[in-house]
Amino acid sequence: VGEKSGDRSVADLGEHAFLDALCRRLRERRKREPSERSVLVEPGDDCAVVAASPHPQAFTTDTLVEGVHFRSTWLSPRALGRRATIVNLSDLAAMAATPTAILMALTVPAQTSVASLDEMLDGCADACAEAGAALVGGNLAGGDLLSLTVTAIGEIRGRALERSGARPGDLLVVTGTLGDAAAAVAAWLAGTEPAPALRERWVAPTARIDVARKLAAAGAHAAIDLSDGLRADLGHLCRASGVGAVVEHARLPRSEDVAALDALGSDHALQGGEDYELLVACPPELEPALLELSTACGVPLTVVGRCTEAMDLVLQHADGRLGPLDAVGYDHFSGSRRE
Amino acid sequence: VGEKSGDRSVADLGEHAFLDALCRRLRERRKREPSERSVLVEPGDDCAVVAASPHPQAFTTDTLVEGVHFRSTWLSPRALGRRATIVNLSDLAAMAATPTAILMALTVPAQTSVASLDEMLDGCADACAEAGAALVGGNLAGGDLLSLTVTAIGEIRGRALERSGARPGDLLVVTGTLGDAAAAVAAWLAGTEPAPALRERWVAPTARIDVARKLAAAGAHAAIDLSDGLRADLGHLCRASGVGAVVEHARLPRSEDVAALDALGSDHALQGGEDYELLVACPPELEPALLELSTACGVPLTVVGRCTEAMDLVLQHADGRLGPLDAVGYDHFSGSRRE
Repeated sequence: VGEKSGDRSVADLGEHAFLDALCRRLRERRKREPSERSVLVEPGDDCAVVAASPHPQAFTTDTLVEGVHFRSTWLSPRALGRRATIVNLSDLAAMAATPTAILMALTVPAQTSVASLDEMLDGCADACAEAGAALVGGNLAGGDLLSLTVTAIGEIRGRALERSGARPGDLLVVTGTLGDAAAAVAAWLAGTEPAPALRERWVAPTARIDVARKLAAAGAHAAIDLSDGLRADLGHLCRASGVGAVVEHARLPRSEDVAALDALGSDHALQGGEDYELLVACPPELEPALLELSTACGVPLTVVGRCTEAMDLVLQHADGRLGPLDAVGYDHFSGSRRE
Repeated sequence: VGEKSGDRSVADLGEHAFLDALCRRLRERRKREPSERSVLVEPGDDCAVVAASPHPQAFTTDTLVEGVHFRSTWLSPRALGRRATIVNLSDLAAMAATPTAILMALTVPAQTSVASLDEMLDGCADACAEAGAALVGGNLAGGDLLSLTVTAIGEIRGRALERSGARPGDLLVVTGTLGDAAAAVAAWLAGTEPAPALRERWVAPTARIDVARKLAAAGAHAAIDLSDGLRADLGHLCRASGVGAVVEHARLPRSEDVAALDALGSDHALQGGEDYELLVACPPELEPALLELSTACGVPLTVVGRCTEAMDLVLQHADGRLGPLDAVGYDHFSGSRRE
């Protein structure tokens, strides 16, 4: 930060010296990459202060813990800082919010090198710059395990997309492809290296901010981001909305890698989490507009099923057979899938 | 949460079931204790959404880690949730901001009981209600160590009190008494029980929200909250403002307990952190108004020194002798005081 930091640890440098250097770095960076909302008081004071906004404000927070949500062998410190930020930007996207400000609270072991901390914060700042948000503040605490808690702040310039707005008859639309991130994690946990494309999708997901806002403006009813996987998150959306759903298994959008793996017996596209794609419930009259929206945003949009009045979650298999689609998802405590 | 939770752990209950129950609890509580700013989307969605505000927005985040910032034998889960929130409200107070919303990101070991999590969140909600803020969201993650990261959001209805506004000649004013929290921690670390009044001050500090706003309105120049202790935080304020200071040791406001301990050789009032009182730089013409402000807010205000043009930090001892007052403070990595 500022001067050459080499392999010094945070403990060597001291917390306050590190924070001072960090604040200087953030101020310099902001001069080069101004964010959409003006920062009135810069990092380094008791609080950051940003200008008033005429729009409702959206807030979300999420934590990544080493050994629980990631292993440090899976990605660089810079990619980790970026990913922790995108995971939160994705929650803003699922609300059709426009990101404005980010806070990053780091807990790091004392022997953590200043260089790797710098990289984590650079990764966070990269994600902020891509989304037009300002990295306005944060915290640095000592602790035995590395963990990153990001708070993302956005504004609702149009309509908010709540989870609870889906209605019977709505189309279920997903962005991008499903299962890539889970396939990468499965490879790591099996002791192998994932295919580069799969690895990249876990390491660097995309927050679907632009397409979410356009879908909201076009009249979409509800959205949720696919952090726990389609099966689990569809359950959350349906429960909040008081609807059921039928999902067509063959329609799930898969990358070539995931298609090959799922053909061999895995079910990453349906069950795998951490893609940070969106599931959006759209009224059927929106279907003709989806292709144009997809092209305009450069994001694939796929209809994978529809909402039903009956509260059941149903999976239509490739052979036409119908079966139950029970909500399961990654549980951060058992570390396994719960039925 | 809702139904009787007994001694079940979060792992027994499952993360999603816990979060669902928590969201119901928060919604019920909000009906009883409406916050100042209206909550448009309740906890349980991808983001919380609160109504637009015409004022600049203040953001701050801070983490408490078990074994680093507290030991669970020192306070109840409810007091811990409350304290983690107040620590952040204090940063808003130091900016003369009015608290509006709180997010609580918890990292907890899998065996943590649902009952103690409920209590932590109740403590957080208590602090929110006292401050007129809404507990709008949060996160629950698994991890080996208990840690609480709170993000506090406020609005600047009048003038913001930055650290950098102090000028030569300003009076240095502190709220409350100093050193109580550090004296309590010193007792615990020495294996004894602190005096009840000292323990209470560490367990349940007060965010000085009201008096800070009134001091800002009256024309105060700068403020910082005393998390690292007067000696360290005065250094931060002076450095940010480009001024020096003279502090009169005999003037530091001490409780009876701290006065007795400091008479025996400790220096808690000058060096002890975690009181979460405020240090405010006020133009000298404000002095006559301080007593009235103090009475109106029910908070002691004490002039402990003044800012100087010379950049040195000087301590005037009780016998009139002048000596250096070097900025030192608690370092969260070395776990000791750094000169």
